[in-house]
Amino acid sequence: MTKTTIKKIGVLTSGGDAPGMNAALRAVVRACKYYEIASIGIMHGYEGLIHDDMIELGPRDVKNIINQGGTFLKTARSEEFRTKEGRQKAYENLKKNDIDALVVIGGDGSFTGANIFHQEFDVPFIGVPGTIDNDIFGTDYTIGYDTALNTVIEAVDKLRDTATSHNRVFFVEVMGRDAGFIALNSGIASGAQDILIPEQKDSVEDLCNSLERSEETGKKSSIVVIAEGEQLGGVYEIAKQVQARHPEYDIRVTVLGHIQRGGSPTCQDRVLASRLGIAAVEGLLDHKTNLMAGIRSNKVVFTPIDEAIKKHNEIDEELIKVANILSI
Amino acid sequence: MTKTTIKKIGVLTSGGDAPGMNAALRAVVRACKYYEIASIGIMHGYEGLIHDDMIELGPRDVKNIINQGGTFLKTARSEEFRTKEGRQKAYENLKKNDIDALVVIGGDGSFTGANIFHQEFDVPFIGVPGTIDNDIFGTDYTIGYDTALNTVIEAVDKLRDTATSHNRVFFVEVMGRDAGFIALNSGIASGAQDILIPEQKDSVEDLCNSLERSEETGKKSSIVVIAEGEQLGGVYEIAKQVQARHPEYDIRVTVLGHIQRGGSPTCQDRVLASRLGIAAVEGLLDHKTNLMAGIRSNKVVFTPIDEAIKKHNEIDEELIKVANILSI
Amino acid sequence: MTKTTIKKIGVLTSGGDAPGMNAALRAVVRACKYYEIASIGIMHGYEGLIHDDMIELGPRDVKNIINQGGTFLKTARSEEFRTKEGRQKAYENLKKNDIDALVVIGGDGSFTGANIFHQEFDVPFIGVPGTIDNDIFGTDYTIGYDTALNTVIEAVDKLRDTATSHNRVFFVEVMGRDAGFIALNSGIASGAQDILIPEQKDSVEDLCNSLERSEETGKKSSIVVIAEGEQLGGVYEIAKQVQARHPEYDIRVTVLGHIQRGGSPTCQDRVLASRLGIAAVEGLLDHKTNLMAGIRSNKVVFTPIDEAIKKHNEIDEELIKVANILSI
Amino acid sequence: MTKTTIKKIGVLTSGGDAPGMNAALRAVVRACKYYEIASIGIMHGYEGLIHDDMIELGPRDVKNIINQGGTFLKTARSEEFRTKEGRQKAYENLKKNDIDALVVIGGDGSFTGANIFHQEFDVPFIGVPGTIDNDIFGTDYTIGYDTALNTVIEAVDKLRDTATSHNRVFFVEVMGRDAGFIALNSGIASGAQDILIPEQKDSVEDLCNSLERSEETGKKSSIVVIAEGEQLGGVYEIAKQVQARHPEYDIRVTVLGHIQRGGSPTCQDRVLASRLGIAAVEGLLDHKTNLMAGIRSNKVVFTPIDEAIKKHNEIDEELIKVANILSI
Repeated sequence: MTKTTIKKIGVLTSGGDAPGMNAALRAVVRACKYYEIASIGIMHGYEGLIHDDMIELGPRDVKNIINQGGTFLKTARSEEFRTKEGRQKAYENLKKNDIDALVVIGGDGSFTGANIFHQEFDVPFIGVPGTIDNDIFGTDYTIGYDTALNTVIEAVDKLRDTATSHNRVFFVEVMGRDAGFIALNSGIASGAQDILIPEQKDSVEDLCNSLERSEETGKKSSIVVIAEGEQLGGVYEIAKQVQARHPEYDIRVTVLGHIQRGGSPTCQDRVLASRLGIAAVEGLLDHKTNLMAGIRSNKVVFTPIDEAIKKHNEIDEELIKVANILSI
Repeated sequence: MTKTTIKKIGVLTSGGDAPGMNAALRAVVRACKYYEIASIGIMHGYEGLIHDDMIELGPRDVKNIINQGGTFLKTARSEEFRTKEGRQKAYENLKKNDIDALVVIGGDGSFTGANIFHQEFDVPFIGVPGTIDNDIFGTDYTIGYDTALNTVIEAVDKLRDTATSHNRVFFVEVMGRDAGFIALNSGIASGAQDILIPEQKDSVEDLCNSLERSEETGKKSSIVVIAEGEQLGGVYEIAKQVQARHPEYDIRVTVLGHIQRGGSPTCQDRVLASRLGIAAVEGLLDHKTNLMAGIRSNKVVFTPIDEAIKKHNEIDEELIKVANILSI
Repeated sequence: MTKTTIKKIGVLTSGGDAPGMNAALRAVVRACKYYEIASIGIMHGYEGLIHDDMIELGPRDVKNIINQGGTFLKTARSEEFRTKEGRQKAYENLKKNDIDALVVIGGDGSFTGANIFHQEFDVPFIGVPGTIDNDIFGTDYTIGYDTALNTVIEAVDKLRDTATSHNRVFFVEVMGRDAGFIALNSGIASGAQDILIPEQKDSVEDLCNSLERSEETGKKSSIVVIAEGEQLGGVYEIAKQVQARHPEYDIRVTVLGHIQRGGSPTCQDRVLASRLGIAAVEGLLDHKTNLMAGIRSNKVVFTPIDEAIKKHNEIDEELIKVANILSI
Repeated sequence: MTKTTIKKIGVLTSGGDAPGMNAALRAVVRACKYYEIASIGIMHGYEGLIHDDMIELGPRDVKNIINQGGTFLKTARSEEFRTKEGRQKAYENLKKNDIDALVVIGGDGSFTGANIFHQEFDVPFIGVPGTIDNDIFGTDYTIGYDTALNTVIEAVDKLRDTATSHNRVFFVEVMGRDAGFIALNSGIASGAQDILIPEQKDSVEDLCNSLERSEETGKKSSIVVIAEGEQLGGVYEIAKQVQARHPEYDIRVTVLGHIQRGGSPTCQDRVLASRLGIAAVEGLLDHKTNLMAGIRSNKVVFTPIDEAIKKHNEIDEELIKVANILSI
């Protein structure tokens, strides 16, 4: 790739939305202004690139959005961008709009698309990890993760009120796709008796043992947090099996669902999104490409997009021990 | 009934828990102290009466609970209290503990139990309406209803973030048993395109028409709020039928579930619970019985418990019109 | 006034902003569409009328604002509108924009302006009470009041955490102008030891007696809620005088300030604003004028604007008694 | 020091309270149970040690407190513990209660006290950083800091509603003692036009320049976040000086005050507190002493207490640049 001078950056949000995406967009747009280049927003992820649905953006166009959930550019999963023809159209619109480089805010699927697009058309891009699942390598935290954690614990705090009042056992399913980060951290923070995550081999028997131990120590009600990616058959099936072994338990199931994707971002997510949005623009201006901007030990770092897609953050064993100790 | 001087009041929470029950308990205990009589808390609803599980309560025992969800006396549905033998045991424990009268915080099931108990054993009681469903006659609002409404709209606000970002249609099931109060008010407040309640005859066809109209006017995403008591077969069935007619819709279903029962009570629920708890004590001291303390036009009123159980508040037709106008 | 057919309604927000104003604007605009007339938004209150700063509004222009605090039409206090010349200019712009009638969302100052304007130029208008202070006659609740109450109690709940941890006395000043509604209701709901409001004659001596009694009953920390309109010299002065009498108290002062004016409106405020916005449009179409739309006993009512301005809602004596009983 | 076997750990909270202290206490108590030793809670910080005010604690005694602000052991600043006599009494009560080691949850003042106590009486202790100010060396985050940040941005979000509606400039004072961490991070996250912190040399002239630039770019309202430790004379003085230069600005001042110390802790604070509470117990059992348990790059680390007291975390220059770019 020849190092062309970048005069205009296109930015899009792709894949599942996450709180803080608006803060990242705001940071990209304002950083462009700061470095005296233009910015353009691409609607509906890669769909807007294919269908030439874009809007020029200046600093005032992104005012009062740092505290808004969702993404004002909207997001989508684009089937067409998976085809060569789709990407060809996208490239033509990119040229037509004088876009020199892309900032792609999303998860690994979005990064994979950008990577292929780069291989084919040599368009520089930097990825920004925006997903509540925290399942992206190369960053300690993804944008939206901290907000989702707090949404979960506020919900479980409410469930605990009613669990305690009725001496009930609540099984709560939380998001996270194939990763247990949300479940493990929110489970610790909401005082769960047990936490089931995909990274660990669990069994209904172990779960029942845990609930029985908790009864013996005098607990009258319990919360069990279960990751959606967990392998025992889903929260309803698990509840059914526990109920079969313990017909005396007063069990309730709650699937928290999409509320975990919305809401005003937390301070940490707003600051993280702001830092990474700026870093992405600075990276592109510095002729970086095919990288993801992330945060490691509180410093901005860039990770090759291949690694960001293929590698995975490991669950911290210390946290699993913490969960065990606290449920004594 | 001879008008005995009341020297000690027993208080219990029964049925489903509701935010504000703790505020009502606090008010009962402090009013007893104010009027220089004793108060005793009965654990687990009528179960505590049957099994003699009670605690003496003074003003300091109810400190720092006005803002706590749930009920620190816990609650239960008592099968045993439905039997003559159960109630006989309850009466004996009542005498044993020198309880002269009861304040029963709960819903219509709890009031029915108290009413039968009164007929059999002549124990004075006053009911306080504690349920999120707002389905009790004799009061404009039940304790917990306002908190549940706000829990719902905060959740739907979050869903709207993701609905808007993805151009999705969300079907949201809310609580309310056989009543549509929560659905109608939270639906209006969260900008729902349509609201399905048990009190109205709805059809999937009407719902689809509403969604089609909304598309025609340029709406890209919609929220549909559905009461759990609604008659079309439940939120999943409705979603399935709408999806069959409109395969192009990106539909998601969320069942808000038990988070609606918990949480720190709103100002209105805390004040309401405080007023009704005091009114119940004052009513008993004034030799009232078989009544429910409620609020009508912002004044405390007493309603015969029979009416509170059998009659129902009507859905306000004006609100249905409001919902229609706003979804234009 | 000849009953002209109303084809276009102008709407403005004026005076101090209040949560729910956006919901009211949305309702006005959608009601206009529903009844097939036009609506136009006037920016910055009467200032926009004088300076011809207006925007045509359709149903989609008011999407996703029902949950936003503040007012997207902005608000101001207009000095110029207090002059004959200012109002003359306003009238000319009104004619120029074919505005047949006004919906004025604000407090008594805003209504007074509209009333004079009507007398001079015969412009039909209906007022909608939007103020957190709840100090408008003709409605049980003003728009924004319920939200402000909940903002206050959430803040005081936080203060109580630290008050309790440190055995401190907190003096908290809340808004309400000359009215004690916010202070009295939030004080009850946050478990205040004492509440000072303009409607009651208080003294520092009474306050000290109350704090001393609370100590005797074993309380280690206390909250005192003081209305800004209270007559003893302000929260800092009161704190100083109490400290002088009780040097051993660990006293802290917090002035909650403008956070009470913002935030996403509660369910009650959103529904109230929606109902009154629609009622205002329907009233104008029904040739009503010089009235305020309000809510009494949960029904929409219209009150002559003169009464709304001059009369005042009384503080409910029952609530004062409730506050006394609960602080035992 | 002879390595005595530790059979009983005393735990206390000292200094200013912070959200998450209860979660840390819970973790200490449950870790003691897990490792089969006893734990005892010392009331009111060092005061409880001096006056023998303690309570034995088991796992069930710390139930349902992980989500509560404040500290149930209460906290205080002890003058008596600064004297040799006070510490002598404390030591005697420690022996009397068979306490072998201490976990001290607090800030640098509390650690200093523990350090002197150790020098004199050879009592092993480990510190846990509990303060909203984030001004302790040896940890990336202190317990309570994340919660305080979110309390601040929720408050400023509310102020922004009213700032925007009125085209106002708000000056907001936030806590942080001599450190600017709260101000800088909450300022970025709430979209502040300018942020004044003790670590930077600011001037009213620079602030005015910033506000003027913002006007030129079309901003109609602004938020300025000012750390309490800032050196220009306090928020009221700064507001006065800006108003003198710009009489046309509609300026409002808000001092957020003690609400920043309370509230239910965030997920991050609950997990952090849980990890550090456990780490402190494990450290003591491992014969560590005079250390502070902290978190660095998401790993638990121990720092010599001297360093924790004397060194300071530096403000990250990158964040200052981020703030500048975003306010363009």
